[in-house]
Amino acid sequence: MVEQYEDRIHLNLKREVDDSYDIIFGSGMFSKIAKDLKNNPIGSRYAIITDSNVAELYSYELEKKLFSEGVESKVFVFEAGEQSKNTDVAMSLIGNLSKHKYGRGSAVLALGGGVVGDLAGFVAATYLRGIPYIQIPTTILSQADSSIGGKTGVDTEYGKNLVGSFKQPSRVYVDINTLRTLPEMEVKNGLVETVKHGVIQDKDFFAYVEENAQKALELDHNVLMHIAKTNCRIKGTVVEKDPHEKGLRRILNYGHTAGHAIEKLSDYGLAHGACVSMGMMVAGRIANALGFFSEDDLTRQETLFSRLNFPVKIPENITDENIIAVTSNDKKAKGGKARYCLPKRIGEMNDYSGVYADFIDNQFVTEALRRTR
Amino acid sequence: MVEQYEDRIHLNLKREVDDSYDIIFGSGMFSKIAKDLKNNPIGSRYAIITDSNVAELYSYELEKKLFSEGVESKVFVFEAGEQSKNTDVAMSLIGNLSKHKYGRGSAVLALGGGVVGDLAGFVAATYLRGIPYIQIPTTILSQADSSIGGKTGVDTEYGKNLVGSFKQPSRVYVDINTLRTLPEMEVKNGLVETVKHGVIQDKDFFAYVEENAQKALELDHNVLMHIAKTNCRIKGTVVEKDPHEKGLRRILNYGHTAGHAIEKLSDYGLAHGACVSMGMMVAGRIANALGFFSEDDLTRQETLFSRLNFPVKIPENITDENIIAVTSNDKKAKGGKARYCLPKRIGEMNDYSGVYADFIDNQFVTEALRRTR
Repeated sequence: MVEQYEDRIHLNLKREVDDSYDIIFGSGMFSKIAKDLKNNPIGSRYAIITDSNVAELYSYELEKKLFSEGVESKVFVFEAGEQSKNTDVAMSLIGNLSKHKYGRGSAVLALGGGVVGDLAGFVAATYLRGIPYIQIPTTILSQADSSIGGKTGVDTEYGKNLVGSFKQPSRVYVDINTLRTLPEMEVKNGLVETVKHGVIQDKDFFAYVEENAQKALELDHNVLMHIAKTNCRIKGTVVEKDPHEKGLRRILNYGHTAGHAIEKLSDYGLAHGACVSMGMMVAGRIANALGFFSEDDLTRQETLFSRLNFPVKIPENITDENIIAVTSNDKKAKGGKARYCLPKRIGEMNDYSGVYADFIDNQFVTEALRRTR
Repeated sequence: MVEQYEDRIHLNLKREVDDSYDIIFGSGMFSKIAKDLKNNPIGSRYAIITDSNVAELYSYELEKKLFSEGVESKVFVFEAGEQSKNTDVAMSLIGNLSKHKYGRGSAVLALGGGVVGDLAGFVAATYLRGIPYIQIPTTILSQADSSIGGKTGVDTEYGKNLVGSFKQPSRVYVDINTLRTLPEMEVKNGLVETVKHGVIQDKDFFAYVEENAQKALELDHNVLMHIAKTNCRIKGTVVEKDPHEKGLRRILNYGHTAGHAIEKLSDYGLAHGACVSMGMMVAGRIANALGFFSEDDLTRQETLFSRLNFPVKIPENITDENIIAVTSNDKKAKGGKARYCLPKRIGEMNDYSGVYADFIDNQFVTEALRRTR
């Protein structure tokens, strides 16, 4: 009940929200998805949003399976590539949904990698003030990371990921089979987040990846399935505890402070995964200098990256000065000091009294950068 | 804790959310607002988003008062008018916030009428995946309606209000004094929603407006204050019970089914308030034909609109056929039948088993339109 006072009305909007959802795993599971959407529908109609690469490979197959189960859907394609993750493409998709009379009872199926998930998630979060969406990630990276957790967003001409929303998907289908068509670069990008998950939460998983690195690169079915499930469990556990990144969820940024700066300074010419592997080496070395993360842990991390063919040295043309200029000007920085998430040891991060990140003196950063050359 | 099964992981994201907030009333209250934001801050810095009309009248005064309390703020102005409520203007505001390094700890102050509230609310809902915002509505309409309830949204080239988000404000300041500078048309538009609130929820309030119609039009301070508080209490009560418009909140659409169609068919040349008053006459007559809302109630509603100088007859150039074509093609329509919220009597709406709206045969609509000529 609203409470009324002389000069004030208080609205009581305390309520329980249930954003729980299932992540369902399989291999060649489009028939299973269609059956599941028939028996446990999320919407009355589905808009399959995908990019031009994935459309050719999978979207029409999915549409056909849905059709044969009597589930209504239509494919909406945008041009593949990071440059499509912007408000113009989002608005044109929204215009298309409206033109095809998608109403409040309908739902979005985001079929593809990270760009598709972020963009389709943002469309679902804002179309008609929000309709449900389902993630069907088709890359190791999106299966490990972006499809879970409800971060959606697009770039604007004024900056990357400036516009977005927290909106959890209503379901996630992880089909290992879609990884077979990935370019090698994409496979590798995904494995960086896998190594990251090992360092931040699970030493056994780290050891598993050490042991099975070669098989992962060869897309061994059982290894990929174990990796996908463990990645989702780790990411899911973190998201459960901190859905809106107020604390714990920050540990997922391990390696991303320096990593993002390197990526930006390369004008996005270097792959995201490669930048994060360098960034993890930098953060690991800062932690080491501060008395955590032993030399042995550092060596294991570096060796595993090398085994997965990731760069562990920062290219010469990207200077220490520029990296520090970018990181210490970041929105998350304070008083010229960038904020880093730092590991204690493989499998555990520093919690800094629940903040899980700390502002680091530039002298430590400089030293760590020097060691990563 | 995540639950893990053979082919499935279940994420538990059930949690309590508290979106409660205060609506604070006053007259000439900018100093009070500044003090309140100093003592009970919502953000570390404020972006005052406003339009070119309100900027001249109030925004620099507000900025000055905030400054004298040591509260940091900056004014961001867009061109006044409905045509500014679009994604391009939203993105340019977002770019400006980013350029001025507004971070996650900052907040938006939406100072102005409905367009400002919707647009600034959308900016706050999506900038950096959402920062808090405060509404300072400066029109009767926005004080009665749009500033409360958390509906934000903008138009795209593909349709009106196609993009948006539910995000409750963190606080609302209602300053009656800002109404003194309103054009007469704006005053009247606001009073339509006031009459609507009387019909849908509060017969005593309806009687109060009947008695004080002339004083309201003359901007009598005490009458405006009583109207503002009662409007907020009624709207607030409805929003509390149904924040996301799953049922009860639909009664706020009384008069808006035909009203929106008339507005659209006039190419937005007719004022929103005038269209809603006509729409309420149409909906009242449908209700009457179905055995609710007596002739006496109809007459009281019509007389009150006339006393407030609102049109109660639909212009000839807007035909029955066109109105029916628009309403029955609406997203909320089903099987060619438009959905109407219908009153039982002044002060009470039909609840239709909790749905609060019903699909109406076109013959009843046609007859009601005929009677509204």
